[in-house]
Amino acid sequence: MAAAVVANGASGDSSKAAFAEIYSRLKEEMLEDPAFEFTDESLQWIDRIPLVRQWIKELRVAQSAIKMLDYNVLGGKCNRGISVIDSFKMLKGTDVLNKEETFLACTLGWCIEWLQAYFLVLDDIMDNSQTRRGQPCWFRVPQVGLIAVNDGIILRNHISRILQRHFKGKPYYVDLIDLFNEVEFKTASGQLLDLITTHEGEKDLTKYNLTVHRRIVQYKTAYYSFYLPVACALLLSGENLDNFGDVKNILVEMGTYFQVQDDYLDCYGDPEFIGKIGTDIEDYKCSWLVVQALERADENQKHILFENYGKPDPECVAKVKDLYKELNLEAVFHEYERESYNKLIADIEAHPNKAVQNVLKSFLHKIYKRQK
Amino acid sequence: MAAAVVANGASGDSSKAAFAEIYSRLKEEMLEDPAFEFTDESLQWIDRIPLVRQWIKELRVAQSAIKMLDYNVLGGKCNRGISVIDSFKMLKGTDVLNKEETFLACTLGWCIEWLQAYFLVLDDIMDNSQTRRGQPCWFRVPQVGLIAVNDGIILRNHISRILQRHFKGKPYYVDLIDLFNEVEFKTASGQLLDLITTHEGEKDLTKYNLTVHRRIVQYKTAYYSFYLPVACALLLSGENLDNFGDVKNILVEMGTYFQVQDDYLDCYGDPEFIGKIGTDIEDYKCSWLVVQALERADENQKHILFENYGKPDPECVAKVKDLYKELNLEAVFHEYERESYNKLIADIEAHPNKAVQNVLKSFLHKIYKRQK
Repeated sequence: MAAAVVANGASGDSSKAAFAEIYSRLKEEMLEDPAFEFTDESLQWIDRIPLVRQWIKELRVAQSAIKMLDYNVLGGKCNRGISVIDSFKMLKGTDVLNKEETFLACTLGWCIEWLQAYFLVLDDIMDNSQTRRGQPCWFRVPQVGLIAVNDGIILRNHISRILQRHFKGKPYYVDLIDLFNEVEFKTASGQLLDLITTHEGEKDLTKYNLTVHRRIVQYKTAYYSFYLPVACALLLSGENLDNFGDVKNILVEMGTYFQVQDDYLDCYGDPEFIGKIGTDIEDYKCSWLVVQALERADENQKHILFENYGKPDPECVAKVKDLYKELNLEAVFHEYERESYNKLIADIEAHPNKAVQNVLKSFLHKIYKRQK
Repeated sequence: MAAAVVANGASGDSSKAAFAEIYSRLKEEMLEDPAFEFTDESLQWIDRIPLVRQWIKELRVAQSAIKMLDYNVLGGKCNRGISVIDSFKMLKGTDVLNKEETFLACTLGWCIEWLQAYFLVLDDIMDNSQTRRGQPCWFRVPQVGLIAVNDGIILRNHISRILQRHFKGKPYYVDLIDLFNEVEFKTASGQLLDLITTHEGEKDLTKYNLTVHRRIVQYKTAYYSFYLPVACALLLSGENLDNFGDVKNILVEMGTYFQVQDDYLDCYGDPEFIGKIGTDIEDYKCSWLVVQALERADENQKHILFENYGKPDPECVAKVKDLYKELNLEAVFHEYERESYNKLIADIEAHPNKAVQNVLKSFLHKIYKRQK
């Protein structure tokens, strides 16, 4: 049920190029941080991990290298990060940022990518996942294992280091730290809710309902994926976040809609197009679809769900999918999509600030009716 | 090689009582945090985890309860936390703090205890440890498992929540956040160093030397155990930490000395008295003793170390201990202890501020020649 990307469609190519350029500078700074006396070995770990000697000997290949930062921070589509730059431009009403503004916007964008990397590294351990972004999860790399827990912590700490280095002294420095802290707390609380709902104790579908689903999605995904990039852009623009409670609510609503799409596409999307084969049914995920099915099922249909949901057997999966069809969940989704869109557009247009409206509409149009 | 306690000996009983009182207030605040809509289940997890139903049925006992916060934050001696209050009193030159001062000092003390809990929960997972403070490690509690990773994150996030709630608006709020962030980064970097030195790849004693040992100890233990409590007290007193670089150095030195004692006692301490049986030799720890042995060993003695260090077989352990005796490491330790003490006293007395001298001497005298 993890969200894949914030936004499809093209961001300005200039934003993308500027964004990519900043990464190596931030990485170098992390490797030269005076707060720690790096040894050759710890530098290598963060930026270049030599495969264990034993392995090398067996494979009889030249020494390969895997870098903790590159492995985990890169490899995503960076839509969350890039949207800081795009939002900042719209808030300023310009297509061109000066060098300093570009750097600061890109840096905050990268902080969000670092945050995402931190969540993914640790979530994969807790979910016992196999792959992430087309490669083995970090903790599954042979010489890494549970050192990945500390690597997650290091990734989180890099954010504080980056913020301190580049934003200390700015009038909004405290608000920036408080923002990242609050969003991290909400995300971790959402993850706790997901873990104790989905994993704890014996499997029990009676725990799944719309309220539980909304709460997990909102806290675990929406705040950091949708609210955080815009909040960063607002702070860069000198705004006080206390005045943008309505914007927060709209973005969290949009993030929830985005995750519902994700749940829908996991079952009904084209695997060729979305790049993966959905396994929410097998994985016993608290998906929007199963929650809708539970809402609509009679006793007999509930029995089918209880018997077949969360089992790897393809026959069980097929029975769940048949039931979804019987309950017409595709139509239910399309109705939900239409209603969400209308509600979001109405809320956005009620906002007094035209630039803010543009930011929000741009987000919405990137995700509305997405197929991947 | 984990440090056990900062300080033995009596703290003022009044500090202890005041400190204990504050815990339940902070806990209640965490459970009522408006930044998350707690469900009954998530409240129960943090403060009261019902054992899994299956287990209950089998044991046929009334529902027992384990609380994440109490399980991990309590149970230590709280010497780090209480030393914030004692240091603050000495810096102010008074034995009596007013209600507000007491509350703030206790709150910062508890933040350090929360930080410690966060490190221990995650370290135990990475070290695959069995017990902690006389009970199973948190991740070994049956219904917890790797959810413990997220619990560690929640513990870290509580610190930011507590600081925001009680210190936002204070002139030193930013410095406080920066302090906790910097100390956390140093600790995580020290832990990385420990992990890649001690655990990664095949066992290789050539990686152990005095520089490596000092660096691990300094970063992994000394900053958060010794520097952090005093730095908190300095901030409470309105001081600028930039002016106390020398105090930082002395405390980090003292923390290193403390950890060397810990390494020494693991082998030479009285198990009855220290409350545990040391296993650093079996566990292949980068202990000060093995590092000293490697410094002094001839080729033949090195061979004995390479053959026997890090093996659970009691005969191997005995051979290592015999070698330590042959190399007279007890005397080497006592000489180190004497020199460290003299150097520390000289550095402390060179400090211009008498109140600061008192704080530092109080720390030193609590640990000098400790037997547990």
